[in-house]
Amino acid sequence: MSIPVVDFWFDFGSTYSYPAAIRAPACAAKIGVSIRYRPFLLGPIFKAQGWDTSPFNIYEAKGRYMWRDLERVCAELSIPFRRPEPFPQDSLLAARVAIAGRNESWHDDYCRAVFRAQFGEGLRIDDITVIAGILHRVGAPASWLEQAGSDDAKRVLRTETEQARQLGIFGAPSFITPDGELFWGNDRLDTALAWAKGTAAATA
Amino acid sequence: MSIPVVDFWFDFGSTYSYPAAIRAPACAAKIGVSIRYRPFLLGPIFKAQGWDTSPFNIYEAKGRYMWRDLERVCAELSIPFRRPEPFPQDSLLAARVAIAGRNESWHDDYCRAVFRAQFGEGLRIDDITVIAGILHRVGAPASWLEQAGSDDAKRVLRTETEQARQLGIFGAPSFITPDGELFWGNDRLDTALAWAKGTAAATA
Repeated sequence: MSIPVVDFWFDFGSTYSYPAAIRAPACAAKIGVSIRYRPFLLGPIFKAQGWDTSPFNIYEAKGRYMWRDLERVCAELSIPFRRPEPFPQDSLLAARVAIAGRNESWHDDYCRAVFRAQFGEGLRIDDITVIAGILHRVGAPASWLEQAGSDDAKRVLRTETEQARQLGIFGAPSFITPDGELFWGNDRLDTALAWAKGTAAATA
Repeated sequence: MSIPVVDFWFDFGSTYSYPAAIRAPACAAKIGVSIRYRPFLLGPIFKAQGWDTSPFNIYEAKGRYMWRDLERVCAELSIPFRRPEPFPQDSLLAARVAIAGRNESWHDDYCRAVFRAQFGEGLRIDDITVIAGILHRVGAPASWLEQAGSDDAKRVLRTETEQARQLGIFGAPSFITPDGELFWGNDRLDTALAWAKGTAAATA
């Protein structure tokens, strides 16, 4: 019986995707499920809903709540938290690098390191020197910065974003199980993993 | 040491408040915390955010997700689910009855019964005969329907709604611990209860 794979869709600028991305591997391993990080861009999806920035900026009470809640969630997980300035960060460069290296062994480490840099250290992920430093730390050659600017990386990121929209994704993190169930939010990660495990067992 | 009380703020038309209201008493009792149901009206708070209906109606993908997710959540809890038509229901009458009977022994049973009628049986809670039937079932005299129309009930519901707004509440269900921490959403109920228990123990 093969291990079920849950797609973990996220935008690198998404706040709750940070704790979810960090804890996902251990949660998944514990239950016997595999995680596949799928970066995309929330910007075009938000724009289609009439938003030109994060809803956490548009709706003040919701934003105030989110920052306090994220602080509590990170404390509970014992992971560092620093509120990034500005928010949201432009996640295009970080996403293109991830897409370019999607088949590389450093890909998953890179994804988590981008989240840690932004929400744990307060660094700007639209800064090419920050991304270069992260690539170095995860053992990837600096030449991946050039690959990130390739037509292929740009095209695949657009395709991934369009696929996310077609899957009904409207926020991040979002999880899709092998049978196509969508779960939204850090709070629903464990339910998504259990769902994937349960349906895999039922059809085995 | 006294039992900490968590305020459970909700609008009777709120979808995720249904499973939260039903499971809250058992979850609270298990951990040694008490729940106080605090109905208010989301309408004025949504209106201040520029919405004239539920965000689940305004944002199509989010709405489609919510109905499927709510169905899964109810199945997991083994409670009935029927999507109400129309959505959202006008919750004014149901809320005024609850406010009028806020000190009565049937108040909590009434709150849960309104949710069950709406999301479990698909009944309309803006129908006075439905509310009359619920009052009868929970052992409350029909005269409470008149009390619901009193100036006092109207005034207190307005005050409660304004207090919810001042507490930073922007959606439902929302939970407020004795030390003033806000937790939003059915998914955060258990965290709110644990928080209330933990801080009560720490200051005992």
